[in-house]
Amino acid sequence: MRSPVFEHFDEAWGQRVVGAKSKNGVDGFLGIVVTEVSPGRLVAEMEAAPQLMTFIGNMHGGCISALCDHVLGTVLYPIMPSNHWAATTEFKINLMAPVTKGVCRATATVIAMTRRMAVVRIEVENEDRLVAAAQGTCTIVAPRGEPGA
Amino acid sequence: MRSPVFEHFDEAWGQRVVGAKSKNGVDGFLGIVVTEVSPGRLVAEMEAAPQLMTFIGNMHGGCISALCDHVLGTVLYPIMPSNHWAATTEFKINLMAPVTKGVCRATATVIAMTRRMAVVRIEVENEDRLVAAAQGTCTIVAPRGEPGA
Amino acid sequence: MRSPVFEHFDEAWGQRVVGAKSKNGVDGFLGIVVTEVSPGRLVAEMEAAPQLMTFIGNMHGGCISALCDHVLGTVLYPIMPSNHWAATTEFKINLMAPVTKGVCRATATVIAMTRRMAVVRIEVENEDRLVAAAQGTCTIVAPRGEPGA
Amino acid sequence: MRSPVFEHFDEAWGQRVVGAKSKNGVDGFLGIVVTEVSPGRLVAEMEAAPQLMTFIGNMHGGCISALCDHVLGTVLYPIMPSNHWAATTEFKINLMAPVTKGVCRATATVIAMTRRMAVVRIEVENEDRLVAAAQGTCTIVAPRGEPGA
Repeated sequence: MRSPVFEHFDEAWGQRVVGAKSKNGVDGFLGIVVTEVSPGRLVAEMEAAPQLMTFIGNMHGGCISALCDHVLGTVLYPIMPSNHWAATTEFKINLMAPVTKGVCRATATVIAMTRRMAVVRIEVENEDRLVAAAQGTCTIVAPRGEPGA
Repeated sequence: MRSPVFEHFDEAWGQRVVGAKSKNGVDGFLGIVVTEVSPGRLVAEMEAAPQLMTFIGNMHGGCISALCDHVLGTVLYPIMPSNHWAATTEFKINLMAPVTKGVCRATATVIAMTRRMAVVRIEVENEDRLVAAAQGTCTIVAPRGEPGA
Repeated sequence: MRSPVFEHFDEAWGQRVVGAKSKNGVDGFLGIVVTEVSPGRLVAEMEAAPQLMTFIGNMHGGCISALCDHVLGTVLYPIMPSNHWAATTEFKINLMAPVTKGVCRATATVIAMTRRMAVVRIEVENEDRLVAAAQGTCTIVAPRGEPGA
Repeated sequence: MRSPVFEHFDEAWGQRVVGAKSKNGVDGFLGIVVTEVSPGRLVAEMEAAPQLMTFIGNMHGGCISALCDHVLGTVLYPIMPSNHWAATTEFKINLMAPVTKGVCRATATVIAMTRRMAVVRIEVENEDRLVAAAQGTCTIVAPRGEPGA
């Protein structure tokens, strides 16, 4: 599959974000850490920690859904003009296998992008298996007063 | 739209669950409380608490996604045979308006159900507006050794 | 679920469209006929004709998908400013029961709408059962030179 | 992304299907031709013929949706046990660019498969661009009386 061309890439953004663990918010609770950033691609990891499990002993699907929602927008930050932000418009996720231990590794790839919208695909791997796949749309929002706002 | 007929309804399950707040797991972190249960319908609420917000001041889409994933399976418990469990196979969510305060109220409705699968629709309302809508599929899993397992 | 308020409704459009059968295009092949139009709601029917069936004797899922795609955009025409057009950005469909005879009746309902985007839900009924449910997003496109274009 | 391993592959099926043009059904109307088959992957083409266009001059989204629905199930035939059949449970599609001429080339890839279910991703390319991407679930149905039926 042909990859889109990205006009913009903020390499410093990637350097700031990789390895940093959020202390707050749902991403902090989930323990999401971004591990790789390149133009149109972002990888993030989340450990199968006890607080993410259901009473059955599997990771709650809501954690994997939230991880996907998180990387769906985040992958766009280094390739959008500065001061723009990305809002998830919609996504779809298939949960294909239970997660009981180890690390969930989500890879987000931008497959199409215009000034106002991007389509992103995500694969989540755990213990050498594909456990989830998602596809979604983000709206790119310009600051007030700028073209596209 | 015609509603499916449910062969089974565990009223005691609803009485146990309504009003109880989970202390653990992602549902505990999100503060999800089930407020209404009837055959094929479940309502749950989640407050727009500070820890659910992003740096922009809006609720993280991952929280609303996780709420939807949670009610997608939960609505099936009182209408499945006892000892069965429900696993989210897939869902799709549209996030339509930002949430900044108040309560998110998710209503899950089962629109189709067989012995092995159910299709559920969810609406999330906040401050008198529809802020998200989801549609997804659950697989119904029988205990080992039982028909359908 | 609260219904959005529509600023605009072209009643004449509905009168022109109801009952007319397209002679061309995939909608002509499928035999789609719009039967009801009101603000934010459109009903269309499609017969289970022999050319829409697969070798197994069920209606091809692609026909029901195309019907949903068709009404997803069409429901917006009477509620958009004149000269605007609607392009399907994305949708998701669940196919829940096989169709072997009779009429498929699709009801499209606009659940959210801004100047640039609308979210629509669709139910498809056949022989007194719900056979498909869809949810999708349309982009509303203004003519060149107008605000929003 | 790791590819699933397929226990079964009916090479003769591929040889029979490649290049054959359906004369009937919606696939016949759309002019779908399968051009490549390998384990877990199928490519099919559809020309941007006049009867697939809307009054605006773009291909009707319903044609691309139907193409995706078609390959979603078809990719499974050579990798299912003989006599089994595949029914689309659900799929989601993003339409990313208008099609006005040339050929639409859909590539379906099975990303997960059990005895009862498969998850498939599809990309549709036209004139060197990605114009649509889909992701969906098929239910695999065994003949009556066989395990899994």
